[in-house]
Amino acid sequence: MEYDGTRYHGSQYQTNAPTVQGEVECSLLKLTGEAHRVSMASRTDAGVHARGQVASFRTNKTLPLKAWVSALNHHLPKDISSTAAYEVEMGFDVRRHAVRREYRYCIMNRPAPPALCRGFCDFVRWPLDVDAMNEACQVLVGRHDFAPFASVADGRSTHRRVFEAGVSGRGDLVVFDMAADSFLPHQVRNTVGGLVKVGLGKTKCDDFRSMAASGKPGVVGPTAPARGLCLMSVKYRDFPPSQTETEE
Amino acid sequence: MEYDGTRYHGSQYQTNAPTVQGEVECSLLKLTGEAHRVSMASRTDAGVHARGQVASFRTNKTLPLKAWVSALNHHLPKDISSTAAYEVEMGFDVRRHAVRREYRYCIMNRPAPPALCRGFCDFVRWPLDVDAMNEACQVLVGRHDFAPFASVADGRSTHRRVFEAGVSGRGDLVVFDMAADSFLPHQVRNTVGGLVKVGLGKTKCDDFRSMAASGKPGVVGPTAPARGLCLMSVKYRDFPPSQTETEE
Repeated sequence: MEYDGTRYHGSQYQTNAPTVQGEVECSLLKLTGEAHRVSMASRTDAGVHARGQVASFRTNKTLPLKAWVSALNHHLPKDISSTAAYEVEMGFDVRRHAVRREYRYCIMNRPAPPALCRGFCDFVRWPLDVDAMNEACQVLVGRHDFAPFASVADGRSTHRRVFEAGVSGRGDLVVFDMAADSFLPHQVRNTVGGLVKVGLGKTKCDDFRSMAASGKPGVVGPTAPARGLCLMSVKYRDFPPSQTETEE
Repeated sequence: MEYDGTRYHGSQYQTNAPTVQGEVECSLLKLTGEAHRVSMASRTDAGVHARGQVASFRTNKTLPLKAWVSALNHHLPKDISSTAAYEVEMGFDVRRHAVRREYRYCIMNRPAPPALCRGFCDFVRWPLDVDAMNEACQVLVGRHDFAPFASVADGRSTHRRVFEAGVSGRGDLVVFDMAADSFLPHQVRNTVGGLVKVGLGKTKCDDFRSMAASGKPGVVGPTAPARGLCLMSVKYRDFPPSQTETEE
């Protein structure tokens, strides 16, 4: 699924606020006449976008996979789009079986605020040192305790494996990409907040590394705005295996 | 200037509807206390975006060029942004002195409608033959009578010089770029409408060429939706010459 998260209070269902899960469940109800409970592969916060979210549900309705996609899009609001459908084994867990999640964060880096696509990037007026940011974020790669990047300490493990992290400049845009087995709440946005300080010269590369390795909860930040963040993809081992993929 | 044209009734001032010119003049009034008449380099229709529009005005107010940009952005709505300011000679005509205008049209070409950036591209569900579209549009390059691409016949010359035209695929996006000395009303959108028919196999490449060369007013179309179109840049001979540019 792809969605523009601007008007949603995140991916996860809430009783009194519009959420992505709520919209998908409502559309499925219209489509099948059944109440479905939908699970999401990666939880996204209020205002965060997705290009490659994955959602799963159990249904008694039989439809060709192509028809699921087009019928769902018929009922979904314009800011949510189903891009593909797969049939999976009964034991499939869309969240626990995911082995890799990729997030991207975009920053418009120039003196003038962005008018185009302003809902999909943060804005930093002063020049960012992209090389310094890219160097600093290499410390993230590998299996580490990411407690310093977590906004919430709930007693669960804060160890994660980061496969890749990188910052690159594309014209006026500074793009941060990060792939990991899974992420702590606010981890990407806190990482970006910390890296922007490096890019502005407010934090030295070595100090960022020290904070990252300190094990102290929540020392890296501030939390960058939600609108710059996008869940790019979720990957599964051997997926889609025997299942038939469709693009509609 | 850059703007998201979604909520504007075009670039040119209208009494009873929000326009880009109206917003800029209003912001200048707040900034200087003077009523200004603003001229735009290229007229854009309702819903059309710009990344590189140029606007000029005469003022008695003296401010550093950087301050013009930041002060104007302070007053402008978030969907309009001033990106640079220049001081020019008194005789400068922002519209008549422009020698090259570049437009881009984006089409999301896949079965699922776009949820992200849906305000900045058209959507074509069926696969487009990008090579055929690119081949067809080469007939546009050069100095020709573009009456077949004009929506309005007002008796003025319909001859224009197209410097470049091209269609390329970038993932799910099909991008059409066109540069000319100037454009007729709806010319780019009618061109895109005609090229989409070529891409879908509804019009043969040779038939597109025949229509393009026919001289018959308004035979190429339909007019593609405004939201896919963006004015990318306007170029001047020797500009900025002695003028000092600033990015803020």
